[in-house]
Amino acid sequence: MIFQTQLRIPGPTQLPERVVRSMNRPMIDHRGSEFAEILAEITTGAKRVFKTSNDLLLLTSSGTGGLESAIANLVSPGDEVVAALCGNFGERFAALAAAYGADVVRLEFEWGQPVDAADLAAVLERHPNAKIVLVTHNETSTGLTNPLQALARVAHDAGRIVVVDGVSSISSIAIETDAWGVDVAVTGSQKGWMAPPGLALVTVSDRAWAQQSKARSPRFYFDWKEAKTWADKGMTPFTPAIGVVFALQEGMRMLEEEGLDAVYERHERLARATQAGLEALGFRLYAQDGYRSNTVTSATPPPGLDVAALRKLLNDKYGVVIGGGQGKMTGKMIRVGHLGAIAAGDVVQVLWAIEQALEELDIAPSDGRGVAAISSSLQGVAAATR
Amino acid sequence: MIFQTQLRIPGPTQLPERVVRSMNRPMIDHRGSEFAEILAEITTGAKRVFKTSNDLLLLTSSGTGGLESAIANLVSPGDEVVAALCGNFGERFAALAAAYGADVVRLEFEWGQPVDAADLAAVLERHPNAKIVLVTHNETSTGLTNPLQALARVAHDAGRIVVVDGVSSISSIAIETDAWGVDVAVTGSQKGWMAPPGLALVTVSDRAWAQQSKARSPRFYFDWKEAKTWADKGMTPFTPAIGVVFALQEGMRMLEEEGLDAVYERHERLARATQAGLEALGFRLYAQDGYRSNTVTSATPPPGLDVAALRKLLNDKYGVVIGGGQGKMTGKMIRVGHLGAIAAGDVVQVLWAIEQALEELDIAPSDGRGVAAISSSLQGVAAATR
Repeated sequence: MIFQTQLRIPGPTQLPERVVRSMNRPMIDHRGSEFAEILAEITTGAKRVFKTSNDLLLLTSSGTGGLESAIANLVSPGDEVVAALCGNFGERFAALAAAYGADVVRLEFEWGQPVDAADLAAVLERHPNAKIVLVTHNETSTGLTNPLQALARVAHDAGRIVVVDGVSSISSIAIETDAWGVDVAVTGSQKGWMAPPGLALVTVSDRAWAQQSKARSPRFYFDWKEAKTWADKGMTPFTPAIGVVFALQEGMRMLEEEGLDAVYERHERLARATQAGLEALGFRLYAQDGYRSNTVTSATPPPGLDVAALRKLLNDKYGVVIGGGQGKMTGKMIRVGHLGAIAAGDVVQVLWAIEQALEELDIAPSDGRGVAAISSSLQGVAAATR
Repeated sequence: MIFQTQLRIPGPTQLPERVVRSMNRPMIDHRGSEFAEILAEITTGAKRVFKTSNDLLLLTSSGTGGLESAIANLVSPGDEVVAALCGNFGERFAALAAAYGADVVRLEFEWGQPVDAADLAAVLERHPNAKIVLVTHNETSTGLTNPLQALARVAHDAGRIVVVDGVSSISSIAIETDAWGVDVAVTGSQKGWMAPPGLALVTVSDRAWAQQSKARSPRFYFDWKEAKTWADKGMTPFTPAIGVVFALQEGMRMLEEEGLDAVYERHERLARATQAGLEALGFRLYAQDGYRSNTVTSATPPPGLDVAALRKLLNDKYGVVIGGGQGKMTGKMIRVGHLGAIAAGDVVQVLWAIEQALEELDIAPSDGRGVAAISSSLQGVAAATR
């Protein structure tokens, strides 16, 4: 293939050339001074992104490993845990708590709807012993961003520990960990950070530390206390994914050079453009208006369109890889990722390819509607910012 | 610095140029066909190295994460577990089991001594309910390789489940997982496999699967059943460290091209040469003769030598990074790694640097004893095989 595959799933995201080059180097000793310097830079940089002065820990795992660390460090068997649910990743977080023996209180909303803060407040009032509240910031399966500030406020003011799955949001969508009262926030290297998968980043507040010392679930590899003890010496307890550490350092430098506000604006702009283009092509946006995600757009197809056939054609002929539905939406939805190293020209390319494919699949003529809509949305925006 | 740092710790090991280049490429979809093909190649290749037809699972974690998966999948709280111990990594494995509530039966030997098969048989007879036996194949902290075949035989014949920490041995030191009756074996990508850290490989026998279905420890990220279900579809349950997967594929191809027997012989030859060189320089080999490791040599220093000063001088002036002692041997031992992408010329360089450093530290004149001894041991060996 002469063209470069366009990875437009909601992670792993494409690597900038600079990040690829950052890994083009020999291994180093993870107990040496150079590693300590890199870890310090990453920790300081990540705290700026999380907007926190809490402890920041680096774990070698996927984002789910980071979430498991939260459960293993905070929950004892039999503990009541409130899981606020509106999609597949919320379900995963709840299943994780259940796997550790938590008594999971489900606060469930329709897929595509956000978690409601007033309902959360009511659940917490009914369950005064539920110390832990699990919230998904960006529900990747439905393309929805929950109103985290409001949800965290409610839970924090009720004296609960707020644990946030920010895997597909943090560094692409603003979070104010300390100001919003988020006790634990988790993200993964392969999303907005523009690095390969392999590292989870976790922040831990004082309130979470106090709970950690009481929680009695088994933990070793994911033990926060060990991670913190070693982090204070410039190390990780176990051999870290050093190559991904190099990449994360470089990705973080790129975020800082662009400026976080500009990064967030870029994601918002490309999300709006993608939404406009898909609607013009007859897709229905799945997430409720006002809560649509800036990192991934989910949409149900126009009548007659076979999602699997569309994805295959996009992949084989146009080199564009998009996501499908998860869980109960398998085969009934497309999900277009637009996070990390992505610029205006990239989303135009995706929409153009989808428009071509719709004609080839006899769904609608390619008359430029999709491209025109996205182009109009992007009026005045430079073609490439990376 | 004009010279390239020589990483001679027992892992992470240096990356061959080919492996570095293998990661010089864009990310791919971990739910796509290309990933499935790579996973299939890695799985088939790794089974050849493990000499097993058992299931092989790939986890995104360090080797310790792989070991934790064994405990979480096999042990229920209160279960008796026999831990055969002769060093720091054996202690870690025992601590892992204890963290999951196991009643750990310690079969302990002096550091530098191997685990004795007859003693293991006696312990198993005294503890008929201990279903799980934890064995460290290569005890990295003391530079010792346990007689795994004999130990596994004893435990297997007694009907127990043999769980082997092969993190720093497998692919550098021969193992015959099926023939020896090893139920679970764990290794890590950053050792003999010549890839960066970030992946653990775990094999699971039928006997281990039967135990897995009964064990009641919490597990989610490390759940073998999930890993197996997804592996059968050419995937991993959670986003894997894709860059390390590329590297592992390439490292494995290099192992196959060299031929496993040749790889094992090379490690043995370089270990013997390192041992000869260090003894000539007045170091005392720490591990008992007959059980010295082919991947890492541990030795106590000649009188008056400050290990920290030696390591600092080697690092700063010669670019040679070696390990120090762990646990109770901190500051009292050196550990020289010779595994993975390493050739005869590399160990000569290490010994030369140590000999120079001993003169600079006023311990012994540099009269070429160390280099002569290692050179004599390597008589007739090509300088570089990689």
